[in-house]
Amino acid sequence: MKAELVRFGVSLEKQLRDNFDTLIRERKYTNRSEALRDLIRRALVQRTWGKGGDVAGAITLIYDHHHRDVLTNVTDIQHDFQKIIVSTQHIHLDHNNCLEIIATRGKAEEVQQLADALTSIKGVRHGTLGMSSTGREI
Amino acid sequence: MKAELVRFGVSLEKQLRDNFDTLIRERKYTNRSEALRDLIRRALVQRTWGKGGDVAGAITLIYDHHHRDVLTNVTDIQHDFQKIIVSTQHIHLDHNNCLEIIATRGKAEEVQQLADALTSIKGVRHGTLGMSSTGREI
Amino acid sequence: MKAELVRFGVSLEKQLRDNFDTLIRERKYTNRSEALRDLIRRALVQRTWGKGGDVAGAITLIYDHHHRDVLTNVTDIQHDFQKIIVSTQHIHLDHNNCLEIIATRGKAEEVQQLADALTSIKGVRHGTLGMSSTGREI
Amino acid sequence: MKAELVRFGVSLEKQLRDNFDTLIRERKYTNRSEALRDLIRRALVQRTWGKGGDVAGAITLIYDHHHRDVLTNVTDIQHDFQKIIVSTQHIHLDHNNCLEIIATRGKAEEVQQLADALTSIKGVRHGTLGMSSTGREI
Repeated sequence: MKAELVRFGVSLEKQLRDNFDTLIRERKYTNRSEALRDLIRRALVQRTWGKGGDVAGAITLIYDHHHRDVLTNVTDIQHDFQKIIVSTQHIHLDHNNCLEIIATRGKAEEVQQLADALTSIKGVRHGTLGMSSTGREI
Repeated sequence: MKAELVRFGVSLEKQLRDNFDTLIRERKYTNRSEALRDLIRRALVQRTWGKGGDVAGAITLIYDHHHRDVLTNVTDIQHDFQKIIVSTQHIHLDHNNCLEIIATRGKAEEVQQLADALTSIKGVRHGTLGMSSTGREI
Repeated sequence: MKAELVRFGVSLEKQLRDNFDTLIRERKYTNRSEALRDLIRRALVQRTWGKGGDVAGAITLIYDHHHRDVLTNVTDIQHDFQKIIVSTQHIHLDHNNCLEIIATRGKAEEVQQLADALTSIKGVRHGTLGMSSTGREI
Repeated sequence: MKAELVRFGVSLEKQLRDNFDTLIRERKYTNRSEALRDLIRRALVQRTWGKGGDVAGAITLIYDHHHRDVLTNVTDIQHDFQKIIVSTQHIHLDHNNCLEIIATRGKAEEVQQLADALTSIKGVRHGTLGMSSTGREI
C-alpha cells in the first residue's frame, strides 16, 4: 500500500539552503524531501521515547559466558520481560566474549528498565540501547 | 579461564562515596568494585570508538518493505560491507514496517560508514547505531 | 574547609586496570582516584538530571539581533524564568550573530523548559543546554 | 540586513506531516518552515563539529575554590588557550562551589582540547561542553 503524499512549500535563507544542499550531497540523499523526512522522523522518534510511547529498541550486551551465573541471570531477566522481547541474536566474539542483541518492543519505560536490569548483571561488561521505532509515528 | 584480579585503594570525599553508594543501590550493583568496573568499561568503549579501534555494533533500521527497491538496496549495501557484518535479525513489526538489526564487527569508521549508508537509503525511515565492544579492551 | 576523605579497596581484572591506566595517562589525570572520582561524579550528575533534582546549567543561544522581535522575545522569556536565571553573557560573534550564554540554577525540569522556550523563538537559530551541577551531589 | 529567502516544495507522507504538525504545536514553532529550519541548522552544527570547522562553544566547570591550586590551574590553562577564549562568567554557587562558564570560539578540535584540559584538572569536579556555532553555517 502506497502512503498518500502531501506537498507544501518551505522558505529558507538562501545560504542555509546552500549549506543544506552540501550536506545532502555528502550523505547521498536523493533529494531535499528525503533528507527533510529523515530529520523529521528522527525528531518524532526522540519525542516518542521522551513521552514514554510505544517503541522498538535493540539492546546489546557484552559478557563472558564463563562468568559464573551470567548466562542464567541474562536468561532469567529476559523471561521476566518476555512480553516485550521479540527475539535474541547471539554472537560468539571470541573464546570468552559473547555479543547478545535483544530486539524489544513495548513502552519506552519498560524497554529502558530491561536494558538497565541486563546491564547491571554481574558479568555483563557493557550494554547499549538503540532507540528505534515501531514505525507507527514515522 | 578466570581473569587475574588486581586490587588497589581509592580515596574519595566521604559525601561523594555516600552518594555513590545510593546510586549503587538504585542500580542494584552487587558492590562498589562492580559499579566502578562498569564506569571504567564504559569510558574505555567510548575511547575505542573515538580512536577508531576494533569495535562491535548493532545497527537498527526501520523500513517499509513495500517501498520500491528498499529491500534490494538494503541487501546490496550489506553485501558491499559483508566483511564487517556478522549476522542480521529481521522482525516484522506490522503489515508494512520491518525492524532489521545488523550485528557488525570491524573498524569503528567502517561500522559508522555502513550505518550511514544504510540509513540514507530511500525508504529506510530510521536508523540507530549501538556502539558496543569486541570485549577485548574491557 | 577540607572535605573528609575515606578510603576503600577496588578489585579489577588486571587487563582492565592496565587499559584504564592508559586512559588515565592520555587524559592526564594525576592518579586513579582522581579519574574514578570524575567517572563517579559524571554518573551522579546524570542521575540528578534524570531524577529532576536541583541542577545548574548553561544555555547557549545563537541569534541574529537584526531579526525582528528576537531581542524582545529572548528578554521576555528570561524575565518569565528570572527565578532560575543567575546571569547572562552576551558575545558579538560578527555583524549579525550573537552568542548568548545563560547561567541557570533550579529544578532540572524548569531549566529544560527554559532552554526549550528560548530555542523555539523565531530568530533563535541554535540552542544547547550544558547539564551541570550545583556541586551538592558531587 | 535581511537575508535573501528562497522557497521550494517538500513532499511528505500525510501521516508523517500530521505527526510533525503535532510536534510543531507542542514546541510552539510558528510554522513548518521555522521548525524545519531548526532541524536543518541542528544537523549543520553537528556536521561542523564533526568535520573540525570553526565553532563557538560554552564550557562549564564546577570546582571548589578552596581546593589547593585549582584557581591557579584553571587560570593558567585559560591563558594557554587565550586565543580561543572570548570571555568567562563566574558564579558563586555556595560557600565552596563555583560554576565557571567559558565562552570559546575556534577550531572544534582546539575547543574540545581546552574542555578536556580544564575538566581533568585536580579539583575540577565536573565539566560540560555545549557545542554551538559561530552562526556562519546556519
